[in-house]
Amino acid sequence: MEGGEATRVMVAVNESTIKGYPHASISSKGAFEWTLNKIVRNNTAGFKLLFIHVQVPDEDGFEDMDSIFASPDDFKGMKNRDKIRGLHLLEYFVNRCHEIGVPCEAWTKKGDPKEVICHEVKRVQPDLLVVGCRGLGPFQRVFVGTVSEFCVKHAECPVVTIKRSAAETPQDPIDD
Amino acid sequence: MEGGEATRVMVAVNESTIKGYPHASISSKGAFEWTLNKIVRNNTAGFKLLFIHVQVPDEDGFEDMDSIFASPDDFKGMKNRDKIRGLHLLEYFVNRCHEIGVPCEAWTKKGDPKEVICHEVKRVQPDLLVVGCRGLGPFQRVFVGTVSEFCVKHAECPVVTIKRSAAETPQDPIDD
Repeated sequence: MEGGEATRVMVAVNESTIKGYPHASISSKGAFEWTLNKIVRNNTAGFKLLFIHVQVPDEDGFEDMDSIFASPDDFKGMKNRDKIRGLHLLEYFVNRCHEIGVPCEAWTKKGDPKEVICHEVKRVQPDLLVVGCRGLGPFQRVFVGTVSEFCVKHAECPVVTIKRSAAETPQDPIDD
Repeated sequence: MEGGEATRVMVAVNESTIKGYPHASISSKGAFEWTLNKIVRNNTAGFKLLFIHVQVPDEDGFEDMDSIFASPDDFKGMKNRDKIRGLHLLEYFVNRCHEIGVPCEAWTKKGDPKEVICHEVKRVQPDLLVVGCRGLGPFQRVFVGTVSEFCVKHAECPVVTIKRSAAETPQDPIDD
């Protein structure tokens, strides 16, 4: 129990639907702060946080509807910009860990978040996966999908979902 | 993050279906060991474990089918015996915590485990509920109920379920 390898906690993070990049969603921040305050506490050497951010290709490419692509380099530019947006999001979490002194790693992937998260769990084998969730009712859930519910069912490691508090829930609970 | 109140982790425990009282189930022990090894680690002052054991009245009374009840005291004796069995189960977990130096509390309740656990979460408001589970397939689940699934859905706090490893799973996976 004393020494041994650090407990590896994977935290799935995404951007805010209200503020956009590079702002983290309310539920991602909540999941992160819960992990720090309730699990890591002052035992910074005992844990390593692994941040995974999955970018949805369709969503990210949406703004490019009005762009004109004239050369292969234009596409390269677009891909780089997406990458930079994702990195800015991760920067927030990595900076916070650095301030506190918790070892961490962070990376982005493209794809369907729920499937990519489960795939990364399989690959990286963390001790715990922490996923924020909006705490939506059944009616709202139908339209927005439920990354957290999918992960609870399918991720091959223990999973904890952290609901937003009532105080943090925006007027439209689908926003995050 | 440093000081503040200890993180209160509720661990739901039950008896083994194979070994009976006072032996803890494989999944309870797994959930407990996971909590110690992966969460508490050497930060014993940062956590408090709360053990809840819910006794199912029907199950516990089953052996009394062949008993003869001649006076109110006979019933009292039966109730006391049930109580003592539950306490022996909790003794295992409390003793382990004491050895390691993790503060803990333990208590028993009567009723339907899944409902009583959620009720106790509401009353006690832990920071995390840890529930062991057998990791049954959908066919097996129909017959044995799924305390862990119910708690994930209904408990008013973050919940993590800990599946047994393949090595710990008995020949009949419904046993625990």
